[in-house]
Amino acid sequence: MSAYVPGLEGIVAAQTAISMVDGENGRLVYRGYVIADLAEDMSFEEVAFLMWNGRLPTRAELDAVALELAASRALTQAATITLEALPRDTDPMDVLRSVVSVQGVEHKLEKPSVPLAIHAAASFPTILATFHRRQLGLEPVKPRSDLGHAANYLYMLHGKESSPELVRALNTYLVLLADHGMNASTFTARVIASTDSDLASCLVGAIGALKGPAHGGAPSAVMDQLEQIGTADKAEQWMREARKRKVRFMGFGHRIYRTYDPRAKILRELCREANREFYDIASRVEEVALRELLARHPERPNATNVDYYSAGVLAAAGFPKEFFATVFAASRMAGWTAHVLEYTLKDGRIIRPASQWTGPDPEKRAAVPA
Amino acid sequence: MSAYVPGLEGIVAAQTAISMVDGENGRLVYRGYVIADLAEDMSFEEVAFLMWNGRLPTRAELDAVALELAASRALTQAATITLEALPRDTDPMDVLRSVVSVQGVEHKLEKPSVPLAIHAAASFPTILATFHRRQLGLEPVKPRSDLGHAANYLYMLHGKESSPELVRALNTYLVLLADHGMNASTFTARVIASTDSDLASCLVGAIGALKGPAHGGAPSAVMDQLEQIGTADKAEQWMREARKRKVRFMGFGHRIYRTYDPRAKILRELCREANREFYDIASRVEEVALRELLARHPERPNATNVDYYSAGVLAAAGFPKEFFATVFAASRMAGWTAHVLEYTLKDGRIIRPASQWTGPDPEKRAAVPA
Repeated sequence: MSAYVPGLEGIVAAQTAISMVDGENGRLVYRGYVIADLAEDMSFEEVAFLMWNGRLPTRAELDAVALELAASRALTQAATITLEALPRDTDPMDVLRSVVSVQGVEHKLEKPSVPLAIHAAASFPTILATFHRRQLGLEPVKPRSDLGHAANYLYMLHGKESSPELVRALNTYLVLLADHGMNASTFTARVIASTDSDLASCLVGAIGALKGPAHGGAPSAVMDQLEQIGTADKAEQWMREARKRKVRFMGFGHRIYRTYDPRAKILRELCREANREFYDIASRVEEVALRELLARHPERPNATNVDYYSAGVLAAAGFPKEFFATVFAASRMAGWTAHVLEYTLKDGRIIRPASQWTGPDPEKRAAVPA
Repeated sequence: MSAYVPGLEGIVAAQTAISMVDGENGRLVYRGYVIADLAEDMSFEEVAFLMWNGRLPTRAELDAVALELAASRALTQAATITLEALPRDTDPMDVLRSVVSVQGVEHKLEKPSVPLAIHAAASFPTILATFHRRQLGLEPVKPRSDLGHAANYLYMLHGKESSPELVRALNTYLVLLADHGMNASTFTARVIASTDSDLASCLVGAIGALKGPAHGGAPSAVMDQLEQIGTADKAEQWMREARKRKVRFMGFGHRIYRTYDPRAKILRELCREANREFYDIASRVEEVALRELLARHPERPNATNVDYYSAGVLAAAGFPKEFFATVFAASRMAGWTAHVLEYTLKDGRIIRPASQWTGPDPEKRAAVPA
């Protein structure tokens, strides 16, 4: 048996052809394509197809996926009833976890497949937009089959079409966050898939993992921190005080990238275009934070991570910060489903690691009292 | 980086003091106590307390747990509505996954704790018994606070008190299956806990993993096979034909135990007392199967595993085979919750292993088409 490595850091737990995080060179690669190339022009639908099938779709294939997605946006009756039954102050991640579970029951133990992945992908925006409108006391908006994934998401959220710039911003966000190596939620999905369970079970577990503040909670924490700072000119002072109180600066540092996170670079630009107010404060805070972090930890590549400018892009698209983690889920679900398909097709072996006993020796334990 | 080990077999992914599977000596140990000693006299409540707290409860502590369990058996309004909205032919594991998720939303991101574990434990029998009765067109039965965990479970299922023998049989089953090292569902719960997510998220993921036929599906498959065989005198002939058709005998073999699974030994006795009809067929089939397996694979310790006689015990208690995996979940949830508490208190580090890239080299990939 191996030695125990906390967090399984550096332990290879999967072989994958879906995404590669090339930390040294600051590159994220999906199926052989560098993320910067995909983020430019690809729709979320195209990237999801790429992840599921290993290659980009032809025009006809893309049309077929778009049609299938559009046709799968309605929720089942049970899912609709569940959505309505949840208290208004429910954490949106709990809404997603619960309704995705109910929406999945019709597929029982069907083998995970691309059509099932498409069905699941289509339901996420419907669930989240409907719940958000209910919180606001507004009627749900029926999905529109003539709109793409990102455009329809915003349409269902706001009840009207968003500008092409905002659709593009959300689409790029969805593409950039769609997969990222063996993160905790993706690994969760693979462990569940390894028991021959169904796709909904894998997704529900992955949503549960992403809900954890150490995983999916960072963008909303960035927003909290920037709201506390308030204006660009207060950045310096806030940071000084934060240092004294040992407050962690949210949105900086990554275990893997040694250079600027390639996703952060793109989101920074998007944010500058889509959310100038946020950008002005955030970029000033970033400047101060990076200087500060460099002084404190010159050995660490404490560059801005993907969460930092995500917050500004999501806010521009009209998502309240309580929903940031759910939009992350709506993106990452492309990766989760692709990993489930990959595991189901290739590895197949149940994931059942060993553990090291640290409890009392039964020889020395007192007998069970009669 | 390490080499890739499929299934993480032999990779130590956890340090734990909750259970130890001592395959060489055919022992299962909970918190230092050998399972055979606990199965004799302990209630599920006592064993759950032991798992959560690392020691057996005093009389007063046990009374407090029993009271708290009894007081937590009702479902929230949203959970009740969800339960009623699910189609009658829903897989009971999907019912459990969905309603546990909804039941958990009121706790949002609360830190996992023993009181939350008690609340969750109390809800499993209510969810499952209510759904089963609905399938039969029967009114749900209100939980009784004067009954213990196993007795109340059967009471809610059947609408009347069961015999002390059946209560004891179910209780022993619940004790025996409550934890078993780093199995896939327990590991799932720990990975989700590692992101600082909440207890319901961990449980929902674990239920999803247990739903997989390679994990929680074996006892119902045993039942299917014994039903096919029909009577004890047909065992020999069925086995001969099964061998020709390369059918796998369900309920035999285990990755870890080199001798007879200690849980199977106890369940065999229980089954003989509680379900003589099942026992007569099953013990004859076991005899033939063990002989057959020894001849085919003399190197493998193909002993009867825990799933084999589980089927007879659960059937005797009145569970249809479609519910076997859910009773397994109602037992294992003691272990799941204990592992979440252990991880939350001790390890804390996010579980994020590495992966090995097997996809195309981005240098060689054709450019993204314009």
